Amino acid sequence: MKERKYIKDLKNHIGEEVIIAGWVDVRRDQGKMIFLDFRDMTGRVQGVILPSYLEALEVGKTLRNEFVVKVKGKVNERPERNKKADILNGELELEIISLEILAEAAPLPFDLSLSGYNLELTTELDNRSLALRQPKIQAIFKIEETVIDSFREFMKINNFFEFQAPSMVPATAEGGAEVFQIDYFGKKAFLSQSPQLYKQIVMSAFERCFSVNKVFRAEPSSTTRHLTEIVSLDAEMAFIDSWLDVRDMAENTVKHILKQVEVKNAEHIKLLNVELPVMIDKTPTLSLREVQQRIFEVYGRDVRGEKDTNAQDEREICEIIKKETNSDFVFIYGYPTKKKPFYVYPSKDEPEYNEGMDLICRGVEWLSGGRRINDYDQLNEHIKIWGMDPAKVKMFLEAFKYGVPPEGGFAFGAERITMQLLGLKNIREACMFPRDMNRIDERLSDEGY
Amino acid sequence: MKERKYIKDLKNHIGEEVIIAGWVDVRRDQGKMIFLDFRDMTGRVQGVILPSYLEALEVGKTLRNEFVVKVKGKVNERPERNKKADILNGELELEIISLEILAEAAPLPFDLSLSGYNLELTTELDNRSLALRQPKIQAIFKIEETVIDSFREFMKINNFFEFQAPSMVPATAEGGAEVFQIDYFGKKAFLSQSPQLYKQIVMSAFERCFSVNKVFRAEPSSTTRHLTEIVSLDAEMAFIDSWLDVRDMAENTVKHILKQVEVKNAEHIKLLNVELPVMIDKTPTLSLREVQQRIFEVYGRDVRGEKDTNAQDEREICEIIKKETNSDFVFIYGYPTKKKPFYVYPSKDEPEYNEGMDLICRGVEWLSGGRRINDYDQLNEHIKIWGMDPAKVKMFLEAFKYGVPPEGGFAFGAERITMQLLGLKNIREACMFPRDMNRIDERLSDEGY
Repeated sequence: MKERKYIKDLKNHIGEEVIIAGWVDVRRDQGKMIFLDFRDMTGRVQGVILPSYLEALEVGKTLRNEFVVKVKGKVNERPERNKKADILNGELELEIISLEILAEAAPLPFDLSLSGYNLELTTELDNRSLALRQPKIQAIFKIEETVIDSFREFMKINNFFEFQAPSMVPATAEGGAEVFQIDYFGKKAFLSQSPQLYKQIVMSAFERCFSVNKVFRAEPSSTTRHLTEIVSLDAEMAFIDSWLDVRDMAENTVKHILKQVEVKNAEHIKLLNVELPVMIDKTPTLSLREVQQRIFEVYGRDVRGEKDTNAQDEREICEIIKKETNSDFVFIYGYPTKKKPFYVYPSKDEPEYNEGMDLICRGVEWLSGGRRINDYDQLNEHIKIWGMDPAKVKMFLEAFKYGVPPEGGFAFGAERITMQLLGLKNIREACMFPRDMNRIDERLSDEGY
Repeated sequence: MKERKYIKDLKNHIGEEVIIAGWVDVRRDQGKMIFLDFRDMTGRVQGVILPSYLEALEVGKTLRNEFVVKVKGKVNERPERNKKADILNGELELEIISLEILAEAAPLPFDLSLSGYNLELTTELDNRSLALRQPKIQAIFKIEETVIDSFREFMKINNFFEFQAPSMVPATAEGGAEVFQIDYFGKKAFLSQSPQLYKQIVMSAFERCFSVNKVFRAEPSSTTRHLTEIVSLDAEMAFIDSWLDVRDMAENTVKHILKQVEVKNAEHIKLLNVELPVMIDKTPTLSLREVQQRIFEVYGRDVRGEKDTNAQDEREICEIIKKETNSDFVFIYGYPTKKKPFYVYPSKDEPEYNEGMDLICRGVEWLSGGRRINDYDQLNEHIKIWGMDPAKVKMFLEAFKYGVPPEGGFAFGAERITMQLLGLKNIREACMFPRDMNRIDERLSDEGY
């Protein structure tokens, strides 16, 4: 629509006649005058049909919320006493000259307004199309867009090559029961649980690579933290000196994301009333055993010798670190080698512990990664010990047969990080079209959340 | 690796001692001296081990192609007569002081070098991991990265919101036999063939949106143009005046992509010896009937009245337009309404023809799009005429029930456009991990291409 002005730009047109186009956000009919708030993708503005505009009044009377209109109006500065500070177009009002209805809307089944919107998540998802017009819901997805964009941006700044990891994969050596199976022309294929082996292959040719791609988890868990389809942000880098290079890259990536969200989504953060987590200059980094020791010292709870952290451990170590350093984040490394995938690098000094790591924030895992084995013989040995079929990782092994530098990488889920960033209670809120055991758009069963 | 210099930057260190790290690209053992070309992700450089470096010579003798090494050396300017113009580091040579082997490589099963590489596509894909190190293959995927990046970039410049379209979908009204079926916790789900309906939903809330996501086609065709998994670049925009706004956005998007590839991938284009297609200022735009009329006039072949173009029509109209205007591109619009999906907008004047369009280049379709129906009642009517079950597009219809502006959009495949851009003979060359009837990484059957 060529002559159209965006609502956010109206302040540059005070005293002028303009055309805007958008949705009726609110309509207040006062008989002789009608007040109309209009919304487009850039913001909101109040308009008024004065008693003298008879034709516009006629149209105005037929309008309901969500009607789509093209509006001709004059941008008037409000008298000082009517100006509203701190809101877009609070200093102006649109004197409506004429209105054209571009599309009608049925009466709304629920209140979409900022103050009135109050749906249960299940109902919200049952009405996804309409609920997406709600400003707080839009804010979440605008922030998620920034999370993904700023991951990509930071990768590019650091010379990572973006590749497209495949979604459909053959039977994998890693895959267990939690894989979705596809009928592939009468044969079996599966949905990828992780681009791990692919990104290691691509790294072996491009040194540094990343991907933003879907992964799929057929976990039969209907919790507030499980989705069956996730956007996975994956990075892999060659020529590291040690796993600490991977930690640093992961830390700086998250730092960049936090900064970008803070800058680009300031108004969304304000609307959602969120306090972003604090990442200090050097994120505290503890081995699993150190974490267990600290928990024992501070809380007297003895989890020393456990093979992994549980949810309580993660909450407690975050509390300890927060109190001591103000950091909301902590890296944990050095898990038992045998408890993790075959490709994780065992520490040279203590091979029973590995150089895998997790980044925990406010008691929840944000990101996993670490150094990987780059030696062909060691990989083969691990494959044997892990009881895997080498034929099922043939393409992966081929890469490592022909010279691969010391390397590592990390991965995190876009929905998970958005959820944690915003303190959302349910990961489904951070996914526009969430898939789970009970829902693919429509409910498959009657369970709520 | 903190002290490492990238090979492309060596020209800034002439006369200095540096550390580089990378792969042995070529090794020429002359007994008393060994010449070694090294490769990292930034380029190649020639090194030499002079007779006086006895330890380095010992290591140098054990090296083979693709060994990963850390090299300490002095950057020497070459004598004038030995300088090579037009190649990276042609003016310098690395005097190798010491060599450390970071990873060994098995003897290569084929020649990876620029002049020596000569694999059949089937063999190439059977050896995908190693083949990805070949410079011409890397060039293709660097260009594909630019195609996707510059699509995204142009969308962002034009205020399109990026969303993540889902891959797993419920039974859709559109889906026919060519859909992959998933075992979804004992129920049926499918892999998405297109984010079409999702992007229209998101557009109804965000006005302008785009997605870069996988789509899946279970077409049982083993041609040079079919993949079962594709990266789909999708855009949708509200508040259009007519379908011409969609055409313009599509045209400018492609123009931006072409420009970015030309600028950012100049060396890859040169390596692949490619002539990019010409897009003139205003791409010629013909209705289907005009196309048929022109073919009749120029070639005497009468396809007037046919419901669609075939491959020969597309080749011939491109030849005609190229000769007349020098444009390699042509838009075709105005297809029979009934032959296209239910959501395509029928022309107001001649409702039996629609406002859908295709962009054809050098005889092949690049992109499809057009104006869509935004009126709820008209959509319902079409759904009835098309014999579809409205329950299967419930979420989609919900969006249109509550006011949707005049709108349209377009879509194209990243692999398809990369293939056409580079004149590749087989779409598999434009896909890093191509999936088809006969292959998911490994061959499922013995057929070649």
